[in-house]
Amino acid sequence: MIAGSWVPVTLGILGLVAAFIIFTIVKRYPAGEGKVVEISDAIHKGAMVFMRREYTILVVFVIVVAVLIAFSDLGLNTMYAFLLGAFCSGSAGYIGMYTATQANVRTTTAANTSGASEALTVAFYGGSIMGLTIAAMGLFGLGLLYLFFGSDPEHAHAIHGFGMGASSVALFSRVGGGIFTKSADVGADLVGKVEAGIPEDDPRNPGVIADNVGDNVGDVAGMGSDIFESYCGSMIATIAIAATLSDTEIGAQHVLMFLPLALASAGIICSLLGIILVRIFTKKSAEVALRIGTVSASVIFIAAAAAVISWVDVSLAVWGSVLVGAVGGIVIGLVTEYYTAGKPIRKIAEGGETGPATVMINGLAIGMQSVTVPLLMLCIIIYVSSLLAGLYGVGIAAVGMLATVGMTMAIDAYGPVADNAGGIAEMAGLGEETREITDSLDALGNTTAAIGKGFAIGAAALAALAIITAFIETVAHNNPDFSLEINNPLVLAGMFLGGIFPFLVSSMTMTAVGDAAFDMIKEIRRQFREIDGLLEGKAEPDTERCVDIATKAALKRMVPPGVLAVAAPVVVGFSPLGPEALGGMLGGALIGCVLLALTMANAGGAWDNAKKFVESGNLGGKGSEVHKAAVVGDTVGDPFKDTSGPSMNILINVMAIVSLVIAPLL
Amino acid sequence: MIAGSWVPVTLGILGLVAAFIIFTIVKRYPAGEGKVVEISDAIHKGAMVFMRREYTILVVFVIVVAVLIAFSDLGLNTMYAFLLGAFCSGSAGYIGMYTATQANVRTTTAANTSGASEALTVAFYGGSIMGLTIAAMGLFGLGLLYLFFGSDPEHAHAIHGFGMGASSVALFSRVGGGIFTKSADVGADLVGKVEAGIPEDDPRNPGVIADNVGDNVGDVAGMGSDIFESYCGSMIATIAIAATLSDTEIGAQHVLMFLPLALASAGIICSLLGIILVRIFTKKSAEVALRIGTVSASVIFIAAAAAVISWVDVSLAVWGSVLVGAVGGIVIGLVTEYYTAGKPIRKIAEGGETGPATVMINGLAIGMQSVTVPLLMLCIIIYVSSLLAGLYGVGIAAVGMLATVGMTMAIDAYGPVADNAGGIAEMAGLGEETREITDSLDALGNTTAAIGKGFAIGAAALAALAIITAFIETVAHNNPDFSLEINNPLVLAGMFLGGIFPFLVSSMTMTAVGDAAFDMIKEIRRQFREIDGLLEGKAEPDTERCVDIATKAALKRMVPPGVLAVAAPVVVGFSPLGPEALGGMLGGALIGCVLLALTMANAGGAWDNAKKFVESGNLGGKGSEVHKAAVVGDTVGDPFKDTSGPSMNILINVMAIVSLVIAPLL
Repeated sequence: MIAGSWVPVTLGILGLVAAFIIFTIVKRYPAGEGKVVEISDAIHKGAMVFMRREYTILVVFVIVVAVLIAFSDLGLNTMYAFLLGAFCSGSAGYIGMYTATQANVRTTTAANTSGASEALTVAFYGGSIMGLTIAAMGLFGLGLLYLFFGSDPEHAHAIHGFGMGASSVALFSRVGGGIFTKSADVGADLVGKVEAGIPEDDPRNPGVIADNVGDNVGDVAGMGSDIFESYCGSMIATIAIAATLSDTEIGAQHVLMFLPLALASAGIICSLLGIILVRIFTKKSAEVALRIGTVSASVIFIAAAAAVISWVDVSLAVWGSVLVGAVGGIVIGLVTEYYTAGKPIRKIAEGGETGPATVMINGLAIGMQSVTVPLLMLCIIIYVSSLLAGLYGVGIAAVGMLATVGMTMAIDAYGPVADNAGGIAEMAGLGEETREITDSLDALGNTTAAIGKGFAIGAAALAALAIITAFIETVAHNNPDFSLEINNPLVLAGMFLGGIFPFLVSSMTMTAVGDAAFDMIKEIRRQFREIDGLLEGKAEPDTERCVDIATKAALKRMVPPGVLAVAAPVVVGFSPLGPEALGGMLGGALIGCVLLALTMANAGGAWDNAKKFVESGNLGGKGSEVHKAAVVGDTVGDPFKDTSGPSMNILINVMAIVSLVIAPLL
Repeated sequence: MIAGSWVPVTLGILGLVAAFIIFTIVKRYPAGEGKVVEISDAIHKGAMVFMRREYTILVVFVIVVAVLIAFSDLGLNTMYAFLLGAFCSGSAGYIGMYTATQANVRTTTAANTSGASEALTVAFYGGSIMGLTIAAMGLFGLGLLYLFFGSDPEHAHAIHGFGMGASSVALFSRVGGGIFTKSADVGADLVGKVEAGIPEDDPRNPGVIADNVGDNVGDVAGMGSDIFESYCGSMIATIAIAATLSDTEIGAQHVLMFLPLALASAGIICSLLGIILVRIFTKKSAEVALRIGTVSASVIFIAAAAAVISWVDVSLAVWGSVLVGAVGGIVIGLVTEYYTAGKPIRKIAEGGETGPATVMINGLAIGMQSVTVPLLMLCIIIYVSSLLAGLYGVGIAAVGMLATVGMTMAIDAYGPVADNAGGIAEMAGLGEETREITDSLDALGNTTAAIGKGFAIGAAALAALAIITAFIETVAHNNPDFSLEINNPLVLAGMFLGGIFPFLVSSMTMTAVGDAAFDMIKEIRRQFREIDGLLEGKAEPDTERCVDIATKAALKRMVPPGVLAVAAPVVVGFSPLGPEALGGMLGGALIGCVLLALTMANAGGAWDNAKKFVESGNLGGKGSEVHKAAVVGDTVGDPFKDTSGPSMNILINVMAIVSLVIAPLL
């Protein structure tokens, strides 16, 4: 057992304590009174109801899979790890949601009574709890498993189960949350804004609570579980790759197996420092504070990584892999910002002058173009990190990209909290000044969310790549004549097979949003028709029913893509096609998932901002023909960027981790 | 030299003779008189002007590349083959275009004077000339090269140059033709139908001649060069794979090298039989005639293949590969028909009830879903054919799919001839009865075109796969330690790099159509504004200027994607990344290209038919809100199905064949 192997699990616990302390600070802020509390309670309650019902389904799924694992040759250790992974991922999501729906109303009230700086503090604290919880839960769970299994490469395999547990939960959260949020959003907007002609977030709209609930279940819980599984996946993959190595010139095997956890331990401390820095600078502008926090966390981490690596006596070449991963993640994030907030959105908006078709064509073209730099960046990361430290370097690059996840996710989860705060202010009819503050926080949140989305895709791609590599190395370790040459017909057939998944699952989730939104539209129309005085503001809408419909629709439709993703590697791996086709399948699916994820996320984000660009008074402004065309783009972009696109991240990771788990049986 | 090695080149010449005979038959039909001839002359002239200017650019490109080849270590033989390939592809396109623009007006006149059966005959003859020319040119060119180089595996490499010549010409024809046709189409429709409110193909519209020219340069010349290069590519790849083998249990090496040409020779005879059968059955319904022709050609070919294979003394296992390839091509075509003409189009049209955004979402979802069966089919083809005869079997499956190309392409090129005939009838103001005949021929043409497009994608994918396999085998033949394992970081980096190309090129071509259409829109608006009495039908539009604008726009914008595709393999192959990254890149690009090609072609086709479904009186019919929404889908679908989607077929084949050509230098 390596000296310091208790550090990760300890830091995991301390991280949870830190998150809890921040939560008590948030709770001390006043929640406000009257209408504000009423609305926020409805959102909180709706979100919790959704989580409870989602988790009921998840528990059934997790138990079934756990039983299957227990009765397979993988053994009980893998099953325990699987259960722990599912538990950690589920708890992180639940805690994040719970606190986010407490922070949002306090942000509104702070904006109403204390001003912008306090409001930013509360919103950012809300996000920080999510960020820290994710990092801490990952470190705690994996640190614990490391203490049990990590010292012995022959038993380290059980750790993979943790990743499978985390990924399975993430898949359902992301897909279910994505369907919920967009069906509610599209339904509420279409009937409310377009048909009834009332503003967004108007309290008369029966779908508006569901819409705000959706922001939480999609952007907080969904995004969180996505990042959580990439974070854990990158560490697990690196441990698995190290387990197939002997002592090499870059370091001793048992140290290489520990290094990812050591780096993540440094990362959580840096994240905490970043969060404190943001708090210190909130008196200045919000943008400056967030940027100082993020940049500092990354820079300090890169320096700390060098110290950690030399401390555990590993070659400094490995530090190069950390560096290229960390920098690569930032570059991919910035490219996303350019495509979703830079010049391209102007081109999309101008397309509106010749109608919605041109808006669509321009947006799709820009989404497709946007894959170029991120994929080149991934090539560079793979090339440089493997040149420095072989396949182990690729794993470490992924760990380097994700180590400061506490900070990245804090910034990311801040967005939906601010968004919700604005929604509550609007619904409660608070003053112009309050709305200005929440709007400015929200606008900033949109930018950070765009960067976060790009980062999430890059991180997921690299994590999946590392897991796939670990899968191949593990199978090859057991079967020396296993070979995945591209010109092996089985590998080729597998690649084509793998290419189907991203497209088929995207199709399924897009259709699901359309169908679920249709249910929602019918219900909102019904309420406007049947509840007397609703439009005049004299009667209350039945918002709970809308939440219920979105919940049912999402939960029903998240199952088929989820089961497909989990079952496919098992079916192919044990079929006559075998592990070679499975390896090819993962390769094909990886390329397809990354390409579609980037295209959809960036096209969706660009359409969204193109619409906002028009709404801020350009090209005729709100209500013009150009605006109508831009709204069409935005509506198509909604499922692109918030449902189908993000599902790709997890799809490939689930397929990869399931393959890694079954690798010893193949 | 094998007995019968003179057969392919002889049959190539005889095929050209047969095409010429059919051409003289077509010419004997009356071209009509007055307005009809005037319009058809304008279309013919416009098409020829485009071809001449396109070929001027192509000649420069071909000469530059030929000089580069001559000065490289590839030698003069490869250069000669390259020039021959470019010449054969260019001539086939030119002949096809020339005859199609002669057949269209004769179809109109036949419909006007002799009735449906005669009109079908002329239109189908027009397509048959294209089909036979393609098959014959391929057999002639490759047969000739085989006589020179085919008997010696060490020199057979020169033959690859033919494929590179054909693919380069095809790339520019497809991309240039695709941009021309859609910029003219979108421009003419938007200003004519939407803004000025005049019908499609109205002679007052200045863009309408360009639109009809576009049908020829895109659907006849572009499609023809696409199929031509897949056809030749599949044979070249199979010869190349055989050249790396020794005598095996499936057959002697020199026989395996000859077999693809022997199968294609049988194929051209079967195609001619199919064409004759269609002629015999035109008295019955058009649909029955075309179906009998296609099915018979395939069935006879499959039987003939068995005879050929046992005649040249090759194992009958190879016949299994032919069978699975031929059947697979038909299945992929039928799936395309389902997605672009079956139940899915109803779902898209119904989406129009909630506006254009839903039409977009449904169409994209259906396009993405449509990849499933074709990719599964490709997996089956790869698996079964390689099980029967190794990698050689995969090549033979591609040959089997493409051997009856004369018939397939005849049916495919019949579509645009019928479409043009309808356009001429409309513009010349011929009677209702004539228009009914041309409309029914056109509707049938749309179905056959959809099947043809699906078939073209499947064939291109399999041909590219065979070429990539040949590339890998060739490099491995020279460097025994060359290995393309997926977990090699260079291969991985290459796969990500390869994934960029389909998305980037699609983005470039979609943007090109948008920009070119914008030039066209401005010009048509200018003419309506500045030419007095144009809208009242008292003045003539300046149609030549519109053709000129579309030509210039297309030619300018076809160069960057073309150069990118040809240069990328060379740059990567000779860079420090080297042949391993190039192999990975081809793999990544192949998956991306096939997925995008299917998604775009099928979504585009489905949107087109959803609009037609509404126009035929469903869901409110023409002019309703649903119709407006469906028109938006169709407009986005136009560049999808006729520009960007089809470019994918050639993009991957160009990248693959360039790699194969430079393989001996790596």
